[in-house]
Amino acid sequence: MKKMLQRLKLAANPRSVAIVGASPTQNKIGNVVLRNFLDAKFPGKVYPVNPKHTEMYGLKCYAKVSDIPGSVDCVIIATPAETVPGVVEDCAAKKAGGVLILSGGFEEVGRTDLAQRIKEIADANGMPVVGPNCLGIYNPYSKLDSVFLPTYKLERPKPGNIAFITQSGAVGSTVMDLAAFYGLGFSKFISYGNSTVLDESDYLEFLMQDKETEIIILYLEGAKDGRRLLEAMKKVNRVKPIIALKAGRGMGGQAAARSHTGNIAGSYLAYQAAFKQAKVTEAEGISEVFDIVKIFDQPKTAGNRVGVITNGGGMGVLTADAIESEGLALAQFSKETEAELKKILPAYGNVANPLDLVADAGVEAYEKALNLLLKDPGVDALVVVVLLQTPPIDERIIHVLAAAAGNGKKPIATISVGGTYTESYRKVLESKGVPSYNSPRAAVKAMERFITYSKYCAELGKK
Amino acid sequence: MKKMLQRLKLAANPRSVAIVGASPTQNKIGNVVLRNFLDAKFPGKVYPVNPKHTEMYGLKCYAKVSDIPGSVDCVIIATPAETVPGVVEDCAAKKAGGVLILSGGFEEVGRTDLAQRIKEIADANGMPVVGPNCLGIYNPYSKLDSVFLPTYKLERPKPGNIAFITQSGAVGSTVMDLAAFYGLGFSKFISYGNSTVLDESDYLEFLMQDKETEIIILYLEGAKDGRRLLEAMKKVNRVKPIIALKAGRGMGGQAAARSHTGNIAGSYLAYQAAFKQAKVTEAEGISEVFDIVKIFDQPKTAGNRVGVITNGGGMGVLTADAIESEGLALAQFSKETEAELKKILPAYGNVANPLDLVADAGVEAYEKALNLLLKDPGVDALVVVVLLQTPPIDERIIHVLAAAAGNGKKPIATISVGGTYTESYRKVLESKGVPSYNSPRAAVKAMERFITYSKYCAELGKK
Repeated sequence: MKKMLQRLKLAANPRSVAIVGASPTQNKIGNVVLRNFLDAKFPGKVYPVNPKHTEMYGLKCYAKVSDIPGSVDCVIIATPAETVPGVVEDCAAKKAGGVLILSGGFEEVGRTDLAQRIKEIADANGMPVVGPNCLGIYNPYSKLDSVFLPTYKLERPKPGNIAFITQSGAVGSTVMDLAAFYGLGFSKFISYGNSTVLDESDYLEFLMQDKETEIIILYLEGAKDGRRLLEAMKKVNRVKPIIALKAGRGMGGQAAARSHTGNIAGSYLAYQAAFKQAKVTEAEGISEVFDIVKIFDQPKTAGNRVGVITNGGGMGVLTADAIESEGLALAQFSKETEAELKKILPAYGNVANPLDLVADAGVEAYEKALNLLLKDPGVDALVVVVLLQTPPIDERIIHVLAAAAGNGKKPIATISVGGTYTESYRKVLESKGVPSYNSPRAAVKAMERFITYSKYCAELGKK
Repeated sequence: MKKMLQRLKLAANPRSVAIVGASPTQNKIGNVVLRNFLDAKFPGKVYPVNPKHTEMYGLKCYAKVSDIPGSVDCVIIATPAETVPGVVEDCAAKKAGGVLILSGGFEEVGRTDLAQRIKEIADANGMPVVGPNCLGIYNPYSKLDSVFLPTYKLERPKPGNIAFITQSGAVGSTVMDLAAFYGLGFSKFISYGNSTVLDESDYLEFLMQDKETEIIILYLEGAKDGRRLLEAMKKVNRVKPIIALKAGRGMGGQAAARSHTGNIAGSYLAYQAAFKQAKVTEAEGISEVFDIVKIFDQPKTAGNRVGVITNGGGMGVLTADAIESEGLALAQFSKETEAELKKILPAYGNVANPLDLVADAGVEAYEKALNLLLKDPGVDALVVVVLLQTPPIDERIIHVLAAAAGNGKKPIATISVGGTYTESYRKVLESKGVPSYNSPRAAVKAMERFITYSKYCAELGKK
């Protein structure tokens, strides 16, 4: 297995890629994938493979992988299921670095025979195989992109430190699209489908070693080997935080998962217990995965006393509610902080937590309040509501929030709720590294998950 | 009180408006409000009132309301708290239809004396007073707009059938902004702040009679009279569904609510029990209010058997999970439906619920599957996942989903998750009356709330 993961590193960072089933016909999988490489100006070699063609987009087209003259680091296969074992065999003969099988029609429809054959070839040759029935790998650093969804419909995230391992291509790709939308950066995206050869535990091990990855998202329907997954999660989560979303919880979901990737979803309670034991952060849904991952770049804190700033009283109330229902505490400001805060509030304002700066508050009031709470030793974390619609708030708020989020000492989550104007600001905030949420509950839930993981790190003696 | 609500109808649909504290200085409240009327080309008369000016934006400016020659249906007050009782007295002398007090500085900062004075004048004259410490009223039908947030920062919804009563201006206005963003229409927006004269129960009664209103959202921190609110909710919710969001749940939230609008938030458990008793739909947070309200225009159903269609297997699994955790049931398709569905699936596809059309599915497959499930008597409601990123899905999906959502028989919720491309489609879908969600859980939760209310209506013998 060590050798296979070593080769996976090569296949995920390839200098040469073969696309089996490459096609000149628009919207065919083999066409979308080939054009991904051309459009992204992939810096290495691209080899279309299709016996029906000799040339494609100006590139020489080969009948089979073993016909390619140079070495091949990564082979992407998008041909019908029946043909795949033969192609994999040819890849092994060619000593290709690794294989990504996008095609479906294996375990999920009862064709375990085909899957078994692929596994035998892979094991016999120490050749890593991702899939089948998946989207393969997107790596913005090496420009590997086997995601067969056009880039104009599904944006690709910029290079970053978030890795995403997903059993479902649909779930993974849409979250990736959302991540790109908000300017978050990815290190690796691995859609692994049926996990015929490599499974989630292998990918976790792989990403623990991956130098670009700092946070790992895991979307899981059913693991091949639960015990091994628990051990892998324990080991990896100590080094890099894992955020897990388990699907296939109820009976109907489990049946759906089985016909989706051919895996047994298994008892959700067992998974939940495993996440707890490994101290893995569990997300309840797609939006939450996304909400949580955004805050994990913030400075860790072992305390749970939250300071809240707002320019809309009702939003402060909702935030206070969420803080209490999530088991966090409202911080008590120090006497010094309170005296200083009094100076920036209008005569009729109340110094309290949540601190309501009221709708008259300008950017300066925010800046002062933020600096005071960042200094106050009784405040461990900040949740900052900024309703961008009030007249005195202008674009300077971006600098103020970005400076606060980059303070390096306390984690910050911001909340702005609104339409077109607010959403455009939120995108800018996200791209400046400010975790931005459009509801108090989402922000506070994410903060709670982050503080819990921070405490675990503190127990481990990690900063 | 009857007389006061009668006059409120006039004040909320005014043909003449006075703005006390109108100002030529940009970003001042009295300036933003005056310009709202000018920008919206308010069809009635607009009277700026400010003793320091004789003219403003080409309009004659009056020293006080009683100086205005004609009748005044609605007076908007944006002057300091100390001056407000005097202005209200002048309004009463003028026999103005009603008064919206935007100014803060009353109960919420301990100035109950000022509030008491206002209440006495209002009661003695049967004159309705909205506020103080609020945003007043937005009515897209009459073009009344006292919301002192510039329209370029906070969009106003188009005319529609949703009324929003909110104790918090911030919460209300941001939800209104979100509603506009997604093309939902409002009938009335009433931000009522301290509820010194009229309170939530009065507004509920008022909206029950309002011919443009069909759905009511209520954001509440603390009611003046809990028993009366319960009775009002019972009465109104039978006629028009109420969606309630209660803030100030924990101790910290309650303290924050007190300093926000001067109201005692009260025991959350008591409110929760009241919502249950009145069969009012409770939302857990802002995003949920918004998620729920979108689906209430769909056809009612008394059954809870949900059919799911998807083109991404993982999304089907997540949707099935949500259906079970929300206490709904996955429908069992009839033999006839199954036979017909088989024809539109690829050879390796499985006929099951969730129905996974797989990523190859085009718009035609959706159309056929939707029509089959709409016909199947074993299916009460539909949740349709459409990942818009797959190559075969093009803009015709809009027509197909809009036709399905307008079928008049079964409620439909759709789910599309993604970035720029997907979000732009979601906006179009919303504007075509298709409830669109960006997560399976949000869609299923909203559907559950709607089915529960539908069942209540069926018990009442309402269609």
